[in-house]
Amino acid sequence: MANVAASQLGDRIDSGVVITKHGYSKGAIANFQIFETGHPVPDNNSFLAADAVIRAAGHLTAADTVLLFLSGGGSALFEKPLVSASELYGITRQLLASGADIVELNTIRKRLSAIKGGRFAQICAPARVHQIILSDIIGNPLDMIASGPACPDSSTCAQALEIAEKYKLQLSETAKRCLQQETPKYLDNVKTCVVGSVRELCSAAEKAAKKLGYEPITLTASLCCEAREAGIFLANIAQYYNSSEKSLAVLAGGETVVHLTGNGLGGRNQEMALAVAAGIDGLRETAFFSVGSDGTDGPTDAAGGYVDQDTARKLRQKGLSISRILADNDSYHGLMQCDGLIFTGATGTNVNDLSMLLIRREDAPAQQ
Amino acid sequence: MANVAASQLGDRIDSGVVITKHGYSKGAIANFQIFETGHPVPDNNSFLAADAVIRAAGHLTAADTVLLFLSGGGSALFEKPLVSASELYGITRQLLASGADIVELNTIRKRLSAIKGGRFAQICAPARVHQIILSDIIGNPLDMIASGPACPDSSTCAQALEIAEKYKLQLSETAKRCLQQETPKYLDNVKTCVVGSVRELCSAAEKAAKKLGYEPITLTASLCCEAREAGIFLANIAQYYNSSEKSLAVLAGGETVVHLTGNGLGGRNQEMALAVAAGIDGLRETAFFSVGSDGTDGPTDAAGGYVDQDTARKLRQKGLSISRILADNDSYHGLMQCDGLIFTGATGTNVNDLSMLLIRREDAPAQQ
Repeated sequence: MANVAASQLGDRIDSGVVITKHGYSKGAIANFQIFETGHPVPDNNSFLAADAVIRAAGHLTAADTVLLFLSGGGSALFEKPLVSASELYGITRQLLASGADIVELNTIRKRLSAIKGGRFAQICAPARVHQIILSDIIGNPLDMIASGPACPDSSTCAQALEIAEKYKLQLSETAKRCLQQETPKYLDNVKTCVVGSVRELCSAAEKAAKKLGYEPITLTASLCCEAREAGIFLANIAQYYNSSEKSLAVLAGGETVVHLTGNGLGGRNQEMALAVAAGIDGLRETAFFSVGSDGTDGPTDAAGGYVDQDTARKLRQKGLSISRILADNDSYHGLMQCDGLIFTGATGTNVNDLSMLLIRREDAPAQQ
Repeated sequence: MANVAASQLGDRIDSGVVITKHGYSKGAIANFQIFETGHPVPDNNSFLAADAVIRAAGHLTAADTVLLFLSGGGSALFEKPLVSASELYGITRQLLASGADIVELNTIRKRLSAIKGGRFAQICAPARVHQIILSDIIGNPLDMIASGPACPDSSTCAQALEIAEKYKLQLSETAKRCLQQETPKYLDNVKTCVVGSVRELCSAAEKAAKKLGYEPITLTASLCCEAREAGIFLANIAQYYNSSEKSLAVLAGGETVVHLTGNGLGGRNQEMALAVAAGIDGLRETAFFSVGSDGTDGPTDAAGGYVDQDTARKLRQKGLSISRILADNDSYHGLMQCDGLIFTGATGTNVNDLSMLLIRREDAPAQQ
């Protein structure tokens, strides 16, 4: 995002800060400082990066414009806590251990931060802030993506104090004062544009499928059920359209979940693909893939999985049972046995997952 | 089915036998004997009914025609075992206790029966048999519906003996001889027509939806995943089409499954409906229902459930949590709290389940 901004705007950019995960910098950009910082847990670099951002944004005038490019992960990548780092970790641990939900966690954390919950936009004022967002959360809740540094916060001090009491949080005097500081409820200097999300991913996939001769049907951009059950459902759809004379591409965007029952290696996209394989066994030309757009699926080096009408037979011939592989959550090794793993490497962007069922008929041009 | 045959064919029918479940007879039909028999376990009436059928079909000529109307449940409703009833039960119990699958079970049972596995059609020969089927099994496997009395059997004696050995079955000399008797592999006197199945149910529902101003989209006629996960998936579809300006009816036929985690009362259709309710909470006019076509859903007196965009709010206002209700498998009582139970009474026909998501927009005429 920073590279494109630099190439489009050139010396209209006075100065910039890029903050990314350790090892993810793509090299120097003129006029930009680059920080590689901690994720998913903020580290000292995260604090240094936030300081640099605050320095750059702290003395602007109404004639200045701030471009804020945000993507998922920002919550950890830059942070300026209003309490000591060790107290911040301690409070987070207390909340997680007491079973606080994500809304409660955020209500507290925003008040312990100088930049979360709309406060970064306050620092920039009176300059205008254009925030340009790649959403990694289904439904694009702006206050959740990177903890909403330029998004008005709807939670209140009263709620924060209630949560502190509910979970009997151990708090320093400084932390107590923080919980009583209100976050901005209204920001008149911010314009927001979500430029990428799983919806855009689905639209792009629709276009690509059309080009290849498939009629695209998008079912959803918010798929969130159990991965293997989604796979069964999608295979049931393939069964119905097995008699189709048109080439069809059935799409679903979202992010499914996996409840672990075994000790194998795999990911939600790989599990969904294997479940589809069992249900499309022996159909006419039918294929399926599911991938994480960031290039990572679960704790594996694969982005997802590919299967077709021959996959189940190939696994049977090797003496492997799909239901046993799924019970072991070992989709990675299962797909490895039938050349079903998809590797893309890190894409640098996370807009959730894409799943696509392809029903190919003769009138469709060959795939590349 | 017998009533329609009688009214259409009148005295072209020389004699007939109706066999149905205890309490399900709809009254006398001219020229028909009526038997009410055991289901799901055959009883003595099942044997008497089979005797009557065999008497009626046993001395026919090539000039005669047999109309065989079959629906799900026929396996138990009429039966003539070639071993004693008590040995038949004993062998079935041995197989179930050893973990035999349904294919193994049927391979043995067909050989212990005078009518299953195509043997009834042999009894009718040289008369022609027209079998007219209402399918209660997804995919219409003809040898499974009512155990295929007029369907050639693909299993072999060798397989039957292998199964007997594998599970070390205790068999009388009579039973041993039965396993060595081959079932018919080819029947030249049978014509088959599946007149009703979940596919036809979906087509009828499509037509009804169209009449009411909805554009129908059938996803599948073989839905078989976990009920609540299917509900989440369908709600995810509703979320995507919330911005639709057309009225849409998204259909799925099939039969989902429920893995019990609680001790409540409910059924697969009711669970699916409640799961949908959570996901369509607060959308624009969106409704969903799912019903068992036989009028029964799980061990309840309801056929299924209805929910809409207000259901989740209504339950919240009563202090009820959908996720807790689902964890308790208590969908019946949950839906009762929001007038969401659908009662039809026994319909007399089982062609699996129908689920329908309705997205209503202003251009659609009011529903009746």
